[in-house]
This record gives sequence, structure tokens and C-alpha cells, in this order.
Amino acid sequence: MRVLGVDCGTERTGYGIIDSDGRRHTLVVEGVVVTSPKQPMHLRLLEIARKLRALIEEHRPDTAAVEDVFYAANVRTALKLAQVRGAVLLTVAEAGLDVATYSPLEIKGSVVGYGRAEKQQVQMMVRSLLQLDHPVESEDAADALAAAICHATRCTAEVGR
Amino acid sequence: MRVLGVDCGTERTGYGIIDSDGRRHTLVVEGVVVTSPKQPMHLRLLEIARKLRALIEEHRPDTAAVEDVFYAANVRTALKLAQVRGAVLLTVAEAGLDVATYSPLEIKGSVVGYGRAEKQQVQMMVRSLLQLDHPVESEDAADALAAAICHATRCTAEVGR
Repeated sequence: MRVLGVDCGTERTGYGIIDSDGRRHTLVVEGVVVTSPKQPMHLRLLEIARKLRALIEEHRPDTAAVEDVFYAANVRTALKLAQVRGAVLLTVAEAGLDVATYSPLEIKGSVVGYGRAEKQQVQMMVRSLLQLDHPVESEDAADALAAAICHATRCTAEVGR
Repeated sequence: MRVLGVDCGTERTGYGIIDSDGRRHTLVVEGVVVTSPKQPMHLRLLEIARKLRALIEEHRPDTAAVEDVFYAANVRTALKLAQVRGAVLLTVAEAGLDVATYSPLEIKGSVVGYGRAEKQQVQMMVRSLLQLDHPVESEDAADALAAAICHATRCTAEVGR
């Protein structure tokens, strides 16, 4: 199966697509959409949606995984993040993909084996699981790939039950 | 000018379109998109987006007004609301409309003349300003129309300066 993972962020939204049979995962593409805080929110959302749509059109994932939105340190930040998440969910739904959502704890637990793992540990494990000879450059893309890996692993486990 | 106002909600998203010269406002259409809490968020967002897109296509507003998202009593509710707002902003931006955002205080202040007005006062004033012979049935649609009226009034005031 081919899975799109998205890590929503107000300035940096990470994405990653993997192919997976639930055990072996290979990287298809990864990157980050960076938007300027000087732009109004609706134009930033438009930029993120257009990039995701182009990715979906080019790489045709079967399904998508997006992290749950949660209340972190700052309510204003969380509310901005939630708006990005809304735009991402809509874009993915419009492309006809189903969307699985996971908590950060589930994603880290699935990839690192420890729900409270640091960002760098996630980056390292994503590199190792995808057998890359270089680390994924951005933490945001690594988080997106982690969501995709988490979903691929869970999906296959559920089908296999 | 023709203005679309949207009042984002997780279960009920109000909308309203008015024609206005900044002083006289007339109703074009109003209503509510109701989505089921049983559906996953991405499908609810898809339903809201489709309805808005159809409205924009049919009635061709020139611009849109959406209430700011703010932290209310409940963080979980606010985060859901923000996701709806993200999907609404994206839909409106994709239709090529500019989006103005106002705080609830600004909207109520503009329509009722008092920022802390009750929902029913907003409903009454919207009825009066649009010279309707019956009240707007839903509070959500009235709030959406209030956002549109606020924007029409502000816009014209700014142009006239």
C-alpha cells in the first residue's frame, strides 16, 4: 500500500509518502511546505492544499494518515494548527482518500517504541525503518513519514488479525 | 457588493449572502449546513466545503467574511471549530474570493452597536437591517449574516474615507 503522511504546522507542514507491506517500508517522496507568516491564513492554506493535491496526483497514495490536533503549550498556536489540519483533511478527502488519525503518542510509540520519544529519535528511526543512507533532513517531514509508517503498520496488523 | 458570511461550527455551520452598498443590505440566501458528529471529521469538512462551493457558484459573491476563531469555554470544541474554519477559508480562497476576518466583538459591535450582545439581539438586528418580515430562523445563519453585514459596512466606510 502507498501511504501519505502529513505533519500539520502553521509555518511548516511536513509530508511524506511511503510504499509498505506493513513490515518493509520504502520512501517515495518527502518534503515540507513552508508558508510565510506575513500572508493571511486563507492564502497559506491554499498553498498547502495545492502542494498536497499535486503530490496526490503525481504519486497516487491509497490512503492518508494525519496526526490528531492537541492542545499544546499555546492555545493560539494550537488553534492555527487546527485550521491547517482542517484544510489538509479537506484536501485529502476531496482527493477521495480515506484518512486515519493518530495521536502523537501512538505515532511515536509505533515508530520508536516509546510514546514520549524526542524529535531526533523519531528522525533516526524513520531513517532506519526506510533504510535511507542519509537522515531525513527536516523534522517535519520525518514526523509525516512516522505517521505514514504508523498507519501502514497498524493497517496491515488489523487486516492480518 | 455581494458578501458571503460564514459562521463556522462543528455541527452547524451557518451561511448567508447579502447585497449591500454599505448602508442598505438585502438578503440573497441564508441557511445552515448540518453535519453528523458520527461522521469522521474529514467527511464533515467535505460536506461543508461542497455546500459552500455550490453556493459560491450559484450566487457569485464578491468577497467573504469569516469570524475569527477564539478560545471559548472548551479547548476541544475550539480545536474542532478551528478545523472547520481552516476548511472554510480554503474553500473560499480556492473560489478566488478574498476573506476578511473579524472578532465576535467587532461583528456584534457593528450590527448591534454593542460587542457583548446576546445571540437573540443579533438575530433581531439582522432581521431589522435586512428588512425581513420574519426573523432569520437559525442563530447560526443570523451570525453568518451579521459577519457579512459587518464586512459590507466596514468595506464601504474604508473606501469612502
